Amino acid sequence: MTAIAEIFSQGEEVVCGQIVDSNAAWLSQQLNELGFTVKRHTAVGDRLADLAGLIEEIAGRADCCICTGGLGPTSDDLTAEAVAIASGETLKLDEVALRHIEAYFENRLRPMPAINRKQAYFPAGALRIDNPTGTAPGFALRIQRCWFVFLPGVPSEMKAMFAAVREQLLSRFTLRPARLVTLRSIGIGESAIQQCLESLVFPDGVRLGFRAAVDEVQTKLLFPAGFPQSELQICVQQAAGLIGDYVFAIDGLEDGQGGDLLAVIDRGMSVKNYSLAVMETASGGLLAAKCRGRDWLASVSIAKDAVGAARQLAVEPDSAGDLAAAAERLACRLMRLQNVDFALVQLFQGSQDDYRHKDKRIVLYNCLQTGGSAVHAQHSLSGGAHTKQNQAALLSLDLLRRTLQNPCL
Amino acid sequence: MTAIAEIFSQGEEVVCGQIVDSNAAWLSQQLNELGFTVKRHTAVGDRLADLAGLIEEIAGRADCCICTGGLGPTSDDLTAEAVAIASGETLKLDEVALRHIEAYFENRLRPMPAINRKQAYFPAGALRIDNPTGTAPGFALRIQRCWFVFLPGVPSEMKAMFAAVREQLLSRFTLRPARLVTLRSIGIGESAIQQCLESLVFPDGVRLGFRAAVDEVQTKLLFPAGFPQSELQICVQQAAGLIGDYVFAIDGLEDGQGGDLLAVIDRGMSVKNYSLAVMETASGGLLAAKCRGRDWLASVSIAKDAVGAARQLAVEPDSAGDLAAAAERLACRLMRLQNVDFALVQLFQGSQDDYRHKDKRIVLYNCLQTGGSAVHAQHSLSGGAHTKQNQAALLSLDLLRRTLQNPCL
Repeated sequence: MTAIAEIFSQGEEVVCGQIVDSNAAWLSQQLNELGFTVKRHTAVGDRLADLAGLIEEIAGRADCCICTGGLGPTSDDLTAEAVAIASGETLKLDEVALRHIEAYFENRLRPMPAINRKQAYFPAGALRIDNPTGTAPGFALRIQRCWFVFLPGVPSEMKAMFAAVREQLLSRFTLRPARLVTLRSIGIGESAIQQCLESLVFPDGVRLGFRAAVDEVQTKLLFPAGFPQSELQICVQQAAGLIGDYVFAIDGLEDGQGGDLLAVIDRGMSVKNYSLAVMETASGGLLAAKCRGRDWLASVSIAKDAVGAARQLAVEPDSAGDLAAAAERLACRLMRLQNVDFALVQLFQGSQDDYRHKDKRIVLYNCLQTGGSAVHAQHSLSGGAHTKQNQAALLSLDLLRRTLQNPCL
Repeated sequence: MTAIAEIFSQGEEVVCGQIVDSNAAWLSQQLNELGFTVKRHTAVGDRLADLAGLIEEIAGRADCCICTGGLGPTSDDLTAEAVAIASGETLKLDEVALRHIEAYFENRLRPMPAINRKQAYFPAGALRIDNPTGTAPGFALRIQRCWFVFLPGVPSEMKAMFAAVREQLLSRFTLRPARLVTLRSIGIGESAIQQCLESLVFPDGVRLGFRAAVDEVQTKLLFPAGFPQSELQICVQQAAGLIGDYVFAIDGLEDGQGGDLLAVIDRGMSVKNYSLAVMETASGGLLAAKCRGRDWLASVSIAKDAVGAARQLAVEPDSAGDLAAAAERLACRLMRLQNVDFALVQLFQGSQDDYRHKDKRIVLYNCLQTGGSAVHAQHSLSGGAHTKQNQAALLSLDLLRRTLQNPCL
C-alpha cells in the first residue's frame, strides 16, 4: 500500500483564475518522486467554512496533504483559523515564530506592522516550519489519519521550505519511490502509438500513460518500486521497437540518451563537428529560433516560398513544380555556397490562405544534403497557422535527427 | 444569489504534476466574467472510481461544473464512463459525433484508428459539443442540481469550444456578466504596474487583477454588471495614463484598438503600406517567426552577433564597441539594400555564456530607421535563454509598435 497524498491550494486569486496554480504541479512531482500516490488537487477561496470543510474531508481520506496559501497577515488569510476548527485545537502563540517575524522586519530596518503578529499563532501541538525567506512560518500536524503540512503560497518561499518538509516526510512515512521511463516521439499521434502497442502485454504493476505536448508525444511507463532492472530494459526496448523510429529519445534510463529533440541533435552534430546550413520557408524563422546559440548552425536563410528561396540562392526558380526536386537542387547549391557538411532546405506547397486556415492543408517538402546523398521527407500539415509553423520547424529538424541516428551516415 | 461553479480537471499528468493546469485558471476567468461564483477547483487522475465519486460530490453542491480532460481515445480516458456511472445513464453512440471524427481523419488523409470510435459515445440524453479542431467532441448534461460541461484537455481545443459553451450557459442561467477591460503592456513588470496604480482609487465593486503572460503583462479591470459606461471610460483612461506608453493595446472597449502586439503592428503598417527589413541577432529567428506570413515583412536576416551582422550586410565591422552607433549604421545600410520604409537592427552585448545563464544579463540594442530619423531603444535582459530570446524578439517589435503609434511619424 502506497501512502495517499493530496494537494490543497488556498486563495481567491487561484480559484478566480487570476493566477495559474503552479505550486500544485511542483508539489505533486516532489511527492511522486518520494513514492506517494497523489490522488487529488483542490483549490478553494478565502471562505472559512469552505476551508474548514475541505480540511475535514481530506483528513478522512488521505495520509498526507500539503497545503499552500492563506498564511499571510491580512484578514483574508484564514488557514490557521480553519485548521483550528477542523482539528478542534485552539490557536496558541509560538514565541519562536514571533521572534523570527520580528527579526525579519528588524533586518530590513522596518517596524513590524501589528497585523503580522497573527502569523505566529498555530493550532496547539503543531510543528513549526521555519521560513528562511519571508514572514510567514509554516506548520504541520496530524488530523484524523492525515499529516497536514501548511506552507505559504509564494512559490520561492514554499520551495525553500520544502527541503525541511521532505526530511520530515521521509522519517514519518515508509516510502518506495516508483521509476518513470518516457519514450519521446515526433510525427506520430497518441492514438497511433496506442495501436502500435496493442500487442504488448505489460508486466503487472507497470502503468502506461500518454502526454501530447506541443513539440512531441510522450509515452510514459511507470514501473513500481523494486521492479527488476533487466525486465525494465526489455519492456522499454519492446515498446520503443513497436513505435519505431518516431522515437527520438528515451528519458529515465540513465544511459545519457534522453533529452529533447535539440539535445539529441546536439549530440549527433558534435560527433564529427558537423556544420549545417538551412533555408526555411514554412517555419519562417522558427527553426532558426529553436536552434539559437548552436555552434553547428552555420547559416540560416528565410524565404516566403520556393521562388523566394531560389532568388536568395541566386538560381533559376523551378518551373516544373516538382518541389522535392527543387528542394534537392537548392540544398546542393546551399551546401556549396556555405561550405558545410549538411544543407537542409524546406519548401511547401499551398497558398497563404491554405496556411492560415485551420481546416486546410499544406504539403511540406524537406531535403537534407549530406554530401554523399540527399534524404527527403514529405508531410501533410493541418491545423492553425501556429501549429503548421511549429510542425514545419519540428519535422525539418526531425529529418536531421533521423539522418544523424542512421548508422549508415 | 449568484450561481456556484466549480472546475474539474482530469488526468494523471495534472495530478502527478507533469503539467501545470492552466485550463482551470482560464475557465475560472471566463466563468467569473459571465457572473458565476467559482468556489472550487479539483483535479484527479485516471481512476474510474475517483472520477465517478468526484462527479457525484460536485453534482450535490454546485450549479455548474466545467470539466476538462479524459475525452481522448485511449484506455486511460475514462470521463464518459465515469459520467455514466454517476448519472445512471448508459453510453450511446452519437452518429453525428462519429461522422465528425471520421471527417477529421479523412481531411488528414489518414485512416481512422478503431479506438477513436470510442470518442463518439456519450451518456444518453447528453448535449453534444462539436470540436472544430480535434477528434474529441465534448458533451453536457445535468446531474442532480449541477449542469456539467465536459471538454477536452488540450487548451487550444478547449478554448475553441468554449465559445459555444458560453452561449449555452447564458441561455441556461440568469447571469449578470461583469465587464472586463484588459490593459496589455510590454516592457514593465507586474509590481511596477502596481506601484504606478497606487495613487488611483477604484470605484466600489471594480476589481483589479494582473496576469503575467509569456509575451505581455495584462492589467485587468473587472467592472460589475451595470457599471456606467462614462465612468468606466474615465477609470480605464486614468489607469492607462498612469502605466504610460508600455500599454500597447486595451481590450474590451469595443473601439477596435485591442489585440496582441502583432495585431497592433499590423494596423500601423497597413496605414501607408509600410515595408520592413529586419536584422536579428539576440532573438535568432524568433522575431521573423512571430511575423510569419506578414506582407509588410520584406526581408529578415539572422546573424550570431554584431560582427556576423556586419559581414552579412557587407560593411566593415564596428571596432569602437559602440553598439547603438553600430546598429544605426547597419540599419541605414539595410534600408538602402532592401529599399524599404523601415529597417530594424537588433544587436546585443554579452557572451553566449551570459545569454544562457539565467542569473546573467545581456544588453539589447535596437535601432529602427524610418527614413527621416533613427529611433533607439536599449534594454537589459535577464532570465534563461528562452526568456532572453523571447524578450529580445518582443522588445524589438515593441520599438516598431511605439514608432508606429507615435503621432509624429
